[in-house]
Amino acid sequence: MAVVGVGQTELGKGLPDTEFVLALRAIRAALDDCGIDPSEVDGLASYTMEPDREVEVGRNLGLGDITWFSQVGYGGGGGCATVLHAAAAIATGQCNVAVAWRSRKRADKASRVWAQSPEVLADYLQWSRPPGLLRPVDEIAMLMRRHMHEYGTTREQLAEVALAFRAHAQRNPGAAMHGRPLTLDAYLDARWISEPLCLFDNCLESDGAAAVVLVSAERARDLPQPPVLIHAGAQGLPRQHNLMAAYFSDDPLRDGPSSAAAPLLWSRADVGPADVKVAQLYDAFSPLVLFSLEGYGFCSRGESGGFVEGGALGPGGRLPTNTAGGSMSEAYLHGFNLITEGVRQVRGTASGQVADADVCLVTSGECVPTSALLLRSDS
Amino acid sequence: MAVVGVGQTELGKGLPDTEFVLALRAIRAALDDCGIDPSEVDGLASYTMEPDREVEVGRNLGLGDITWFSQVGYGGGGGCATVLHAAAAIATGQCNVAVAWRSRKRADKASRVWAQSPEVLADYLQWSRPPGLLRPVDEIAMLMRRHMHEYGTTREQLAEVALAFRAHAQRNPGAAMHGRPLTLDAYLDARWISEPLCLFDNCLESDGAAAVVLVSAERARDLPQPPVLIHAGAQGLPRQHNLMAAYFSDDPLRDGPSSAAAPLLWSRADVGPADVKVAQLYDAFSPLVLFSLEGYGFCSRGESGGFVEGGALGPGGRLPTNTAGGSMSEAYLHGFNLITEGVRQVRGTASGQVADADVCLVTSGECVPTSALLLRSDS
Repeated sequence: MAVVGVGQTELGKGLPDTEFVLALRAIRAALDDCGIDPSEVDGLASYTMEPDREVEVGRNLGLGDITWFSQVGYGGGGGCATVLHAAAAIATGQCNVAVAWRSRKRADKASRVWAQSPEVLADYLQWSRPPGLLRPVDEIAMLMRRHMHEYGTTREQLAEVALAFRAHAQRNPGAAMHGRPLTLDAYLDARWISEPLCLFDNCLESDGAAAVVLVSAERARDLPQPPVLIHAGAQGLPRQHNLMAAYFSDDPLRDGPSSAAAPLLWSRADVGPADVKVAQLYDAFSPLVLFSLEGYGFCSRGESGGFVEGGALGPGGRLPTNTAGGSMSEAYLHGFNLITEGVRQVRGTASGQVADADVCLVTSGECVPTSALLLRSDS
Repeated sequence: MAVVGVGQTELGKGLPDTEFVLALRAIRAALDDCGIDPSEVDGLASYTMEPDREVEVGRNLGLGDITWFSQVGYGGGGGCATVLHAAAAIATGQCNVAVAWRSRKRADKASRVWAQSPEVLADYLQWSRPPGLLRPVDEIAMLMRRHMHEYGTTREQLAEVALAFRAHAQRNPGAAMHGRPLTLDAYLDARWISEPLCLFDNCLESDGAAAVVLVSAERARDLPQPPVLIHAGAQGLPRQHNLMAAYFSDDPLRDGPSSAAAPLLWSRADVGPADVKVAQLYDAFSPLVLFSLEGYGFCSRGESGGFVEGGALGPGGRLPTNTAGGSMSEAYLHGFNLITEGVRQVRGTASGQVADADVCLVTSGECVPTSALLLRSDS
């Protein structure tokens, strides 16, 4: 199975279109990118955050009879899984041309349920979340503090994440933070959002949408863009998992979902971390990038602080990561723009192109049920 | 792929457990039914109506690392698709032991969004739904009226649906309407809900949950229950579909989702409608059963009224349908109890067992994006 089309709307704040219209525009752009007529689309994969939108997407875009549709939950954890499920649906003959997408309008409250405290405290969350840790950033801050405590990770090391992604964004004219470079001093001076995390450790609040089109690898070879193969994929929801805050487990830093997804992903691949030329790592908060570097085996546990030093994730670094700016400097679409950027890198058409980027790892949310993809060129 | 375990809670109104606890109990019962330890479960399929519940299901039941999870939207249309997707996930190696379920608490407003008129009129629905047709039953009533107008279908024929399912329920001690038989006179005297649909043309409002466990056909043969094979499955969302009310199409009675799912289902099967010994047809409203009989090819278009005459769907009829009482006389769980009853029939363990029930058709919602399964015995 291969990704043959990618589409993205403009990205920013206060876009006039609705979340739904943004979705339509991204999907249409992805279809135009590969020259496939909308009437050929027969599979749809999306996030549960956009419930029951398939009918309207189909009717408004003039899609064909849809013979497979599916959604994946857990917000930012679901991105890669939508693509993985679409690939598996094509592989099993359930559909032939599948589209996966994510649209997001930050003004839409539904995409920020954590901001609605009655919801957050409802049901099981009232028992499992310590009072006061209402926002995801508060929970991740606790985990980062522990990482600092256990491994001596510093703020200067953590800053490398934000600085690297901001540097990539300077080469991507479509990035929200294009033209707004960031310095270490500015990072260190920024206000706390949830100590030890400052403003720049957080993803943006964005409007925008992104989409991909998948077909069989065979058909992909007849289409205009270089095929980007789904080399492997995996989902992970480890046993006894607690959403975001795994504080109650013996080892909160080890029990993240990548602990379940990563070994599965590599077991399904004939490449390993050393073969990955470019990565797109889910970055709602900068600590997640450190956790994923460890979780997916780019370094040993506790060593991610050292790994990222010296601009390792930035342009020309040893593992260029989030090369369009990512969620922190391009736009936050629950990670879907990491997938489109991964495809562009493997095609060789990214604004901050990495040389010989024939293998790209894309990951979805850390600390929630997650998923990951290995994208590979067809040569 | 095979269904090897089924589980169901008690069914009724005002059950003390939450929707979530009902889900846990049904899943646990399904696992006990097949003797599989919860720690072996690595796949979860559910309706989008139960968003982001996988983490809590996993933790509370002691499930293993979950390596595949997926949801399907559109309420009653999604039931068979959850099972189909789970089967495909096992087939593609994404998981080994998958559970699909639906839990429903009628007191839970989230399961009755149509009752919240601001929601119903939001977004695209404000344009596509004629004023006043707020409830699904109102929309289906319009379609039934048209069926009567075009084909001369009568209320007495429509009554056959409700009477047949109520008769089946008298043999199922777990059915909500067990011990409460229905007569044609009572049907004809009942109050209108939305003319020409009366009280008894509507499904029940129920609390309860049902679940199934799937493994590979190979493994199924080593388990205690007779394997029930997923012979074929299909989803359908036809082009230019309008949710529920396809009034704007040239032919509202033809453009239902079964028009897309049914041909696909039969094309994937080596049996046809004539081979189906027992059926479980989605019955939120009795007209949907007539539409599905036509849509899935048990009779020609317009002939379903005649087809159901003389108790054809009842005990001993030519196509015993909804043999546990269905949504109208057992319980309404968005159709999932139709799946568990289909499994029991093919096993040969149903309360109203049909002789030699080696092939069972199960369908999900008509007039919404839908899905269907053909269950078959392993002999």
